[in-house]
Amino acid sequence: MNKKEAMKIYKDQIRKMQAYHLMLATAGFDRLTIAPKDGSEYRNEMISIIDGELYALQTDPKYVEAVLFLADQDLGKVMNRDIFLAKKSLEDVLKFTREEIMEFSLAMMKGNDDWYEAKMKDDYSIFKDQLLKLIDLSKKRAHKRDPKKDPYDIYLDDFEEGMDRKKYDRFFSLIRKELLPFIKKIDRKQDMIDDSFLYLYYPAEKQALFMKDIMDYLGYSSSWGYMGLTEHPFTNGFSRNDVRVTTNYDEHNISAAIFSLIHECGHAFYEHQVDPKYDNLIFIRYMSSGMHESQSRFFENYLGRRKSFFKLLYPKLQGYFPENLGNVSLDDFIRAVNKSKCSLIRTEADELTYPVHILIRYELEKLIFAGKADLEHLDELWDEKYEKYLGVKAKKASEGILQDIHWSDASFGYFPTYALGSAIGAQLLHQMEKDLDLDDLLEKGKFRKITDYLKKNVQHCGALYTFDEILQSATGESFDPDYYIRYLKNKYTKLYNIK
Amino acid sequence: MNKKEAMKIYKDQIRKMQAYHLMLATAGFDRLTIAPKDGSEYRNEMISIIDGELYALQTDPKYVEAVLFLADQDLGKVMNRDIFLAKKSLEDVLKFTREEIMEFSLAMMKGNDDWYEAKMKDDYSIFKDQLLKLIDLSKKRAHKRDPKKDPYDIYLDDFEEGMDRKKYDRFFSLIRKELLPFIKKIDRKQDMIDDSFLYLYYPAEKQALFMKDIMDYLGYSSSWGYMGLTEHPFTNGFSRNDVRVTTNYDEHNISAAIFSLIHECGHAFYEHQVDPKYDNLIFIRYMSSGMHESQSRFFENYLGRRKSFFKLLYPKLQGYFPENLGNVSLDDFIRAVNKSKCSLIRTEADELTYPVHILIRYELEKLIFAGKADLEHLDELWDEKYEKYLGVKAKKASEGILQDIHWSDASFGYFPTYALGSAIGAQLLHQMEKDLDLDDLLEKGKFRKITDYLKKNVQHCGALYTFDEILQSATGESFDPDYYIRYLKNKYTKLYNIK
Repeated sequence: MNKKEAMKIYKDQIRKMQAYHLMLATAGFDRLTIAPKDGSEYRNEMISIIDGELYALQTDPKYVEAVLFLADQDLGKVMNRDIFLAKKSLEDVLKFTREEIMEFSLAMMKGNDDWYEAKMKDDYSIFKDQLLKLIDLSKKRAHKRDPKKDPYDIYLDDFEEGMDRKKYDRFFSLIRKELLPFIKKIDRKQDMIDDSFLYLYYPAEKQALFMKDIMDYLGYSSSWGYMGLTEHPFTNGFSRNDVRVTTNYDEHNISAAIFSLIHECGHAFYEHQVDPKYDNLIFIRYMSSGMHESQSRFFENYLGRRKSFFKLLYPKLQGYFPENLGNVSLDDFIRAVNKSKCSLIRTEADELTYPVHILIRYELEKLIFAGKADLEHLDELWDEKYEKYLGVKAKKASEGILQDIHWSDASFGYFPTYALGSAIGAQLLHQMEKDLDLDDLLEKGKFRKITDYLKKNVQHCGALYTFDEILQSATGESFDPDYYIRYLKNKYTKLYNIK
Repeated sequence: MNKKEAMKIYKDQIRKMQAYHLMLATAGFDRLTIAPKDGSEYRNEMISIIDGELYALQTDPKYVEAVLFLADQDLGKVMNRDIFLAKKSLEDVLKFTREEIMEFSLAMMKGNDDWYEAKMKDDYSIFKDQLLKLIDLSKKRAHKRDPKKDPYDIYLDDFEEGMDRKKYDRFFSLIRKELLPFIKKIDRKQDMIDDSFLYLYYPAEKQALFMKDIMDYLGYSSSWGYMGLTEHPFTNGFSRNDVRVTTNYDEHNISAAIFSLIHECGHAFYEHQVDPKYDNLIFIRYMSSGMHESQSRFFENYLGRRKSFFKLLYPKLQGYFPENLGNVSLDDFIRAVNKSKCSLIRTEADELTYPVHILIRYELEKLIFAGKADLEHLDELWDEKYEKYLGVKAKKASEGILQDIHWSDASFGYFPTYALGSAIGAQLLHQMEKDLDLDDLLEKGKFRKITDYLKKNVQHCGALYTFDEILQSATGESFDPDYYIRYLKNKYTKLYNIK
């Protein structure tokens, strides 16, 4: 086998595998958005067959030989990166049989389905068995992948290349030490800000009209995007020119859908703005989750919760809901959507308490994979952590362990990237404020200038680099969580007039 | 190879192929409903790769050997039918290379995309090149499949097993002879019925509410169904428990979406009500199009346009549109939705003129495949036929050759099944009126009794039998188009007080 032959085998096989990935993405989006539930058993089984077919392509001896051959060559920065990731993924896959891959695929889909039913009926017992099965399977899978490595470290690295418990421990100890006491102080001043008008009745159909305005403002176009509805909002990149988001309407909470949509659009731009020259390379599928969350939480918080962001949008929102917001000034609205309070639901949390929601999940996942969690009572453990850190207690499972979709498809190790992403975002913001007059651009609706900046400085290269390399190139510095702590303390000190 | 081995190979391969069919159905529904257009080039290419993969499964020598072996065995009625259809499909596929299959798949999707753009912009020139390419490809494909058979006969048989030009000629000559003069007579009495209120302004959001009522009335449940939006309404059976329909709102024509949805729900029930014991057999994918259209047009016309059908529904419709329908009685509404007039758009045509729309398409397709149509001016030929048979002339291409999606994915030979289905439906109706008190059931909202009857007498067996065998078992008679002619003449003679 020479370089040219190996490259042809590699490219041809990757092309074919991309077709399977697109089918699986489409079927996955379909099942979470619109597919009727009675068809799910059949559908899930069929999807798992396709997962098995993809496995056969990935483990095709000729492809394996080509990847291993190419991994020893110097193919230049871009192809070296592509082959590195292909090899890494291959080495994992080869640890499993087709049957094991199909079994896991089925188990994740059943997890999704059970979780959804459990959440709808607010009954953890419907989900519990499958959750425990997924935990067990995940532990066994990690052991098979690398018996010498800590299982949780394996999953942390999956979602954020190079991260492990040691690094996250350092990061979260900062959150614990610096933010927890500060949060307590702020929480005592809750009455300072009235946000009751956010929780009046906001009919979904009218919220949908405002979602359209937000997408227009952001430049999230229907020619390359689409907004669907799901219980748990997410973003799914089918290809660079087909990046879909979902949202969910709470008719008694107008800010939920607004900030969730802005968040998902942040993800969507990242997928969309990768340089087209990388279209046929696989590393674009391996973007850092932390970097991804840095973009989504950048949109949601560092831009979306500013007064300047709502300068043009808020009058439209008032127009849809004059009875609720007609007498609420823009300043009062902005104060309300930034109000900090210790609460139960992560996706609705303010910026300040948000990392504590993640800290809780991180500690739970660490316990689970260390074999130190009482799996029979995970839901109670969840509630205890909330009481301990945030002083709030869930009244029902849908406010506790059932609130997030992530564990239902075994995405253990994903949660920490939310907090990491927020911290990365704060560091990017620090640089961006030097380079751009953000408030001026936002007020004038020139959002394109901001997405262009993000494209040029962050998004164009996909996962060609690690998140720290991207940060260094964008800000001149390695990752430094102090930016995040400072940002939060400054913002909330001002907002609550803390001396 | 013995019977047991062959059967195992057959069943395993069919199972795998089903997974590909589901992926392709999902991707197909996705691209026609919600997929963003900028992603279509990539998406179409990936879909064609999966079509190529499916080809590889279908032509896998072991599978081919198993099918050919089984075709010589007596496996009982059900399996004999399954293998018969598998062999028929196999023999066709084997005439082509993987590249040809992929090329055709791409050409059909490009046809869809071009047609859609052309219709939106009302510009036939955008679609013309691809249409001519599809005609050319279809002729070549037919020749490859069977050089001795007439190409159009091949496609007529694809959509309706056993049908050919000779049989359709007989059927359509009856339409021409019996109905055309009658239609002319009725058309002169157009002023007798006022239907102007159907064409007032009906906002799509409110129409959507009524669609929900219709689905509830019919028992088309969201647990096994889903209604999407497309330019051209259709039904797509993903599996027995996942049968989706689409609709399209014309804000200046309330009857368009109503009857189109009822029509598609008729299709949906047919797919849904096949006996579960056939779930893993392939003949359920080969249902007769004529039988399928008989069910959809049965819903739409033989049930949907009755006064009794709207007894419960009409007050709801009035409730959504009091300004348009508040003063229109149920009787006047029913007269309006049955009004006959020579018009341009097939999907909006009344029952009486409808078969003439099909006659026109049948004649056009015959000319195309006989090489007697001037392909450079197909759009003009279309318009001439409408002028000749219905005395109406299209002002724009979207009212003429661009109105239907069928040619855009090379579904030549499908149209005639609409008229055939209507005729089958009339014969079924004749029997059903003896067995059930339809008006009583409809008035009381006992639609379930009707779908149960259809399940028992028609739908349960899928394509285990030909349409004529099903008709014989349901009515005791072979297909007889006189029922259809009589039904139409009786109905419209009464409606228009013809002596």
